[in-house]
Amino acid sequence: MSASAVPGRVDDQERLARVALGRLTEPGDPRLLDLVAELGACRLRDALVEQRQAGDLGGLGIDAAGRVGDCDPEADLERADRLGIRFVVPGDDEWPVSLEDLRRVPPLHARGGPPLGLWVRGPLDLRELGSSVAVVGSRSATTYGTEVATDVAVALARSGRAVVSGAAFGIDQAAHRGAFVGQGPTAAVLACGADRDYPKAHRQLLASIAAEGAVVSEVPLDGEPMRIRFLARNRLIAALSQGTVVVEAAVRSGALNTSTWAERLRRVVMGVPGPVTSVQSEGVHQLLRRGEAGLVTSGADVLELMGAAGECLVPEPRAAPTRRDRLTARERQVLDGVPAAGPVPTDEVARGAGMGLVEVGSALRRLVAAGLVETAPEGWRLTVAARDDLR
Amino acid sequence: MSASAVPGRVDDQERLARVALGRLTEPGDPRLLDLVAELGACRLRDALVEQRQAGDLGGLGIDAAGRVGDCDPEADLERADRLGIRFVVPGDDEWPVSLEDLRRVPPLHARGGPPLGLWVRGPLDLRELGSSVAVVGSRSATTYGTEVATDVAVALARSGRAVVSGAAFGIDQAAHRGAFVGQGPTAAVLACGADRDYPKAHRQLLASIAAEGAVVSEVPLDGEPMRIRFLARNRLIAALSQGTVVVEAAVRSGALNTSTWAERLRRVVMGVPGPVTSVQSEGVHQLLRRGEAGLVTSGADVLELMGAAGECLVPEPRAAPTRRDRLTARERQVLDGVPAAGPVPTDEVARGAGMGLVEVGSALRRLVAAGLVETAPEGWRLTVAARDDLR
Repeated sequence: MSASAVPGRVDDQERLARVALGRLTEPGDPRLLDLVAELGACRLRDALVEQRQAGDLGGLGIDAAGRVGDCDPEADLERADRLGIRFVVPGDDEWPVSLEDLRRVPPLHARGGPPLGLWVRGPLDLRELGSSVAVVGSRSATTYGTEVATDVAVALARSGRAVVSGAAFGIDQAAHRGAFVGQGPTAAVLACGADRDYPKAHRQLLASIAAEGAVVSEVPLDGEPMRIRFLARNRLIAALSQGTVVVEAAVRSGALNTSTWAERLRRVVMGVPGPVTSVQSEGVHQLLRRGEAGLVTSGADVLELMGAAGECLVPEPRAAPTRRDRLTARERQVLDGVPAAGPVPTDEVARGAGMGLVEVGSALRRLVAAGLVETAPEGWRLTVAARDDLR
Repeated sequence: MSASAVPGRVDDQERLARVALGRLTEPGDPRLLDLVAELGACRLRDALVEQRQAGDLGGLGIDAAGRVGDCDPEADLERADRLGIRFVVPGDDEWPVSLEDLRRVPPLHARGGPPLGLWVRGPLDLRELGSSVAVVGSRSATTYGTEVATDVAVALARSGRAVVSGAAFGIDQAAHRGAFVGQGPTAAVLACGADRDYPKAHRQLLASIAAEGAVVSEVPLDGEPMRIRFLARNRLIAALSQGTVVVEAAVRSGALNTSTWAERLRRVVMGVPGPVTSVQSEGVHQLLRRGEAGLVTSGADVLELMGAAGECLVPEPRAAPTRRDRLTARERQVLDGVPAAGPVPTDEVARGAGMGLVEVGSALRRLVAAGLVETAPEGWRLTVAARDDLR
């Protein structure tokens, strides 16, 4: 029976309830997620069935209530099992704890909160996304953008970090491909069911990701991609990864929605600059100007900002030499030419020291810096500290 | 007589002493400038002549000392006068007070301090540089870089701000030309005598600048361009202007020396990003990453950063309004319920949108009229145009 297909401490009823609730509203509906957090999935499902009999279901709508009883979560799980898809829920060993951060952040475009569960196609254990980096950007990317996205993803993969993206045209595609080149894990988070190939042209790409990595979605099986689901999906990309790199993005790009989520989730947000004449870089430059993203020019830059290299380098402690230690013989000669009492101009000190004006002038400034000489309106004189040293 | 050629309160002896001292050492020698600040130009010159008779001149060297008496500042000023060049010194009405900021900043590469005076060829009153912006960058600029530099300079000129640069190939040249296009003032600060054409290929450019703006140098007439003079010259570009824009710069570019000076002088430092694959943008990206420069993508961005708070605020780049923008909130809600791929019947759209069947039906018809939804035998689906708006 597929309800027990995923190992872990979660009981079948909890998993089945979450499958059923997932068919009620659009993903990331904060009203539903709040109720789940409050009542638990099983109790909420039971309450909805009961209310349906009472004829009202408040904000969720009568129609939605109707479906609670109508849907068949066991059949959903069985079908998923046949397709090699598992439904991972909170409490499963594999559940990515990073998703819980979504509880602390208010909704955006009426989407928010952790998902009810994640449908996963592919062998990658979701815990491997713990150190992952999202590489996202424009679908209508330039060759410049796709080249940089590939390079960044290759470097991430080689460093052992999984690459998360959305399997779309342009930057997303380049990111997944870069992960393959770098022989590292990659995960695609979709805005449709994990059993669907969207976009259709990426059927082969998705098959490759599912073969080695993971195709992930909170949308029920068979679910169509819809705008609201992209908005919900973007919060998952941001939450599943430790940092988000925006490679190219026009001012209205969905990638900026992802980076907004990443910022709100206190992930590392990074942007790749490009020609100021390119519309595809305008959105990234906006992020960088506002200080909402750190500028990165390479995978190495990304790894540095992610804390991989040179972390917490502490300078070696050094004993400070005394002021006297730092003086040269010539400087001491000049110091001897400075009277203890009244201030005198540089040419008088030079005469006293038997040295040239210029050399004396610069020595005096070094002596000021050393705290041995001070300037007065009429010239130079010893500091109190230097006068103490005379004795 | 040319010693009185420049109006102001400066007496001839002071000006002549500064011309003479200018022949003693390389420009921006902090040792000499400190002594001038302390003793005054006339007293310093006299002291140097005296020391020369004593046979020693400390740090400035015998050679230098020799020249104090040997040089003929009156002849220098007469020659300048014949060439239409004036020697502006502190105390002259035209003296740019911004140069005094150089006193507060320690030397860099052993260059620092305000100049002894400035040789100026051209009608531009140096006080007009008070609101100027320096546009600097690589000599081996890309066409991308020179185009952006021109655009930025045009915008600055149109806003009434003078453009300061160094008359070199590449970005400098584009900056001066942009100022001409924008019909605004421009000044070239040289690392050789103001009477020289360097680079030679820019003879015509320099003639144009001298005809309408100013060719400026602290190097005595006839002086050759030398590495140390470029380093000294860069501090003047930074100090004369209110802000410095680095358009393109490789990691070792002299433009970064200018921006370092600008930062130390607390001027506004700005950098134009470019492709991360371009060596000519590497130095700028370095500045931006370190937070040593603000990111600018246009002349408008520069004006915004230069402006007092609230002045010249650039409207954030916004994508042209889409068809979706013209929809009501309810229509958008319905649109979001229509799947991208397969057609679905009205009740499914209503469920997705969480709205009543009747209202959804009429909204769908308006969306068809708007070209966002189309009908198919099985129901409704997004048009190709609407699918492009997804994400």
